[in-house]
Amino acid sequence: MSTFKITLAYDGTDFVGWQRQAEGTSIQGLLEDALAELESAPVTVFGAGRTDAGVHARGQVASFTLARAMAPETVMRAVNAKLPDSVRVLDAQLAPPAFHARFDARSKTYQYRIARGPALSPFERSYAWHIPEQLDVGAMASAARRLEGRRDFAAFQSAGTPVHSTEREIYQLRIAECGVRIDIDVRADGFLRHMVRAIVGSLVDVGCGRRAPEWIDDVLASRDRSQAGRSAPARGLFLVTVEYRDTISFHVA
Amino acid sequence: MSTFKITLAYDGTDFVGWQRQAEGTSIQGLLEDALAELESAPVTVFGAGRTDAGVHARGQVASFTLARAMAPETVMRAVNAKLPDSVRVLDAQLAPPAFHARFDARSKTYQYRIARGPALSPFERSYAWHIPEQLDVGAMASAARRLEGRRDFAAFQSAGTPVHSTEREIYQLRIAECGVRIDIDVRADGFLRHMVRAIVGSLVDVGCGRRAPEWIDDVLASRDRSQAGRSAPARGLFLVTVEYRDTISFHVA
Repeated sequence: MSTFKITLAYDGTDFVGWQRQAEGTSIQGLLEDALAELESAPVTVFGAGRTDAGVHARGQVASFTLARAMAPETVMRAVNAKLPDSVRVLDAQLAPPAFHARFDARSKTYQYRIARGPALSPFERSYAWHIPEQLDVGAMASAARRLEGRRDFAAFQSAGTPVHSTEREIYQLRIAECGVRIDIDVRADGFLRHMVRAIVGSLVDVGCGRRAPEWIDDVLASRDRSQAGRSAPARGLFLVTVEYRDTISFHVA
Repeated sequence: MSTFKITLAYDGTDFVGWQRQAEGTSIQGLLEDALAELESAPVTVFGAGRTDAGVHARGQVASFTLARAMAPETVMRAVNAKLPDSVRVLDAQLAPPAFHARFDARSKTYQYRIARGPALSPFERSYAWHIPEQLDVGAMASAARRLEGRRDFAAFQSAGTPVHSTEREIYQLRIAECGVRIDIDVRADGFLRHMVRAIVGSLVDVGCGRRAPEWIDDVLASRDRSQAGRSAPARGLFLVTVEYRDTISFHVA
């Protein structure tokens, strides 16, 4: 039995999301199908972040266990040979037997990309939210600072899987201007459903001048999803990295 | 009569290239069709660079004349409304009546992108040539320097439209490493058919150790296309900018 930790990137445009669904193609489904062929038996793959339909990943992490002893590079090559080119395993490592990509994750970083200006570059069309209006990035940064720290993010959660607690800690929420693009990076110990997209939608309300930065405090206090801004579209969102406490490297015996 | 200079970007993946063809969708064809609708008469659009099938542009320049007086922003908005989102007009300006995007261009800059490493990122799959082997970038840069200046590039030209001279001047051929990517930027007073792709294919032969940097001198001297490396694939090539002698700004009277 060998447990593997893989890092993967995908263009989420044409998928129903990470999680296997009754209909449509999921990243988890593609990986499980590729590994089942390799293993000649069903394999369950756990992903660190359950990205939604249309959401991308540059550094998703997943774990699974195989009965066959295989070198990580061999697993990576074999799986990539079966995946469409919109999904790639970028790295594979042996992990401790109990390693679980989701439960062992300490924090995750998402990036949301906004593209400004009168016309959206063809190269951003699947990877950014196009906002032609002027945005006050200073006001957005001021609103963003109010979301950092341990907070109850109930107002930024969509209905879905019930969770024990709606408290999460945002370690950093950074807004960077890169030419016509505004990149919003959020690192937290965990994320509620659609949390980043509801945060970005609310920050854009502030950037457009529809709301003042202090309004964010009222939204947090309300614990009511209808008080926050609308969800930003999925295509601008990327799961960038997943951080773990220890980097334990294992070698085939 | 108003003459316009537009700057546009396109993802060349699904097109037969800049130039209108008997079969398939071209960028020129899309623009001419959109403008003909606006003008209620045929319009001819001249492009600075006749990019091939699958080649992208971040800053292609095109010119055309309309009988109707229209503000450049109106033309830009109207044309973008008719184009697919893989083609965007990024800027539109009035130009002197005699302005011609191709004949008046002083130089053009193309970029070619190579992606290294065992797996190709899904986000590069339509925008880079994936080379898993090690590349000696120093040797490639040394070979590149031998191509700078005024040279006869007959050995780097594919058969096609006859040209009066195969001499061109490369002002700069720069190779930059950005993470897993190698970006090759070429600025010249003009380009022969497939010239950048033949240059990149030859530089990769040097990078892989199949050829020494000095071999480039023999290829240039041969004036024989079969002596150079194979053409690099179209998907890694971008027309980046077109430079003009004067930036003359005109205003609607």
